[in-house]
Amino acid sequence: MDAQYAQAQHFYARQMQLLDAGSTDEWAATFTEDGVFEVGDSAVHGSEDIARAARKVADEFAAAGVQRRHWIGMLTVTPGGDGELTARSYALVLEIPTGGEVVVRRSTVCTDRLVRSDGQWRVKHRRVTRDGLDPA
Amino acid sequence: MDAQYAQAQHFYARQMQLLDAGSTDEWAATFTEDGVFEVGDSAVHGSEDIARAARKVADEFAAAGVQRRHWIGMLTVTPGGDGELTARSYALVLEIPTGGEVVVRRSTVCTDRLVRSDGQWRVKHRRVTRDGLDPA
Amino acid sequence: MDAQYAQAQHFYARQMQLLDAGSTDEWAATFTEDGVFEVGDSAVHGSEDIARAARKVADEFAAAGVQRRHWIGMLTVTPGGDGELTARSYALVLEIPTGGEVVVRRSTVCTDRLVRSDGQWRVKHRRVTRDGLDPA
Repeated sequence: MDAQYAQAQHFYARQMQLLDAGSTDEWAATFTEDGVFEVGDSAVHGSEDIARAARKVADEFAAAGVQRRHWIGMLTVTPGGDGELTARSYALVLEIPTGGEVVVRRSTVCTDRLVRSDGQWRVKHRRVTRDGLDPA
Repeated sequence: MDAQYAQAQHFYARQMQLLDAGSTDEWAATFTEDGVFEVGDSAVHGSEDIARAARKVADEFAAAGVQRRHWIGMLTVTPGGDGELTARSYALVLEIPTGGEVVVRRSTVCTDRLVRSDGQWRVKHRRVTRDGLDPA
Repeated sequence: MDAQYAQAQHFYARQMQLLDAGSTDEWAATFTEDGVFEVGDSAVHGSEDIARAARKVADEFAAAGVQRRHWIGMLTVTPGGDGELTARSYALVLEIPTGGEVVVRRSTVCTDRLVRSDGQWRVKHRRVTRDGLDPA
């Protein structure tokens, strides 16, 4: 369990570094092909569409010259009966425009179902609730 | 030691999730019955009073429609001779009112004595110093 | 690998606690004697000069009554062929003046080459890029 915990932490660190680097295809590949990404009321289905949606957002931030940083913290991991993990964490979204001033844009809670696929953990289902905006 | 480190991280993640969810009784149960919680000049003694104090604060934030998020980071763990652990960490307190704007309310240092009780780690003594307010 | 990951996390927690406590000599001793610290365009060579530079900054913040807190997050660790580790992380710099208001001063990315020396991990080379200020 402790090894699994470190693995999950490492997984999220890699995943967030990929997203913030604009490597949206590699990032989307950390979801299963049929993965679902829900934020608030909206959902994107399938890693292909997840990649496309992420690319669009990444391009907008790049065009605006704004660096995003996603921080995951307070991660808890609960094993399910079928080899799945439920991972719950806080996620903080920072935005840093040219000049270096840091904006703490959003505080969220991220609840993932992680499955093992091709020797790696992947997100089968992600639900993000944004503090102050979405019902908890 | 490395396993213990992951355990301590997981412990704090669970503990903070409980507090921020308003599950103050479950949160207070992560202290020993005779646990002490010191912040600055004031101290609360015993998990029952710790629960009561936490409930009061949680109700105030709930009434105000403000979500709190406690982040623990930069955790160091030092084993004592008697099976205790001394855990020192940074703790950040975020507040997010309706609308989603994030306020980084407080930066603190948290020094805990953790003991093993009923198969779990529990806080026997917590001392929190608030940066910029309390002597370090 | 998972044990190494926890070790690296613990290493950074200790290192940041030392720096923020103003224990700049102990902090500089977490670099190798020939260690290099690069931030943006400038570099400091050797743990002695690294200590000296850190002392100067620490004294300035102490004189101004400002507490700094360095948070490391989203850490990834990649083993090299020769027992080295490449560690990449996000680092957030907080400043808290008297009164307790928290300023999130800087978001950075920290890329370290860690080597084993005298039974501990030490930084042989650190490169910090500041979001919004330095090329990524």
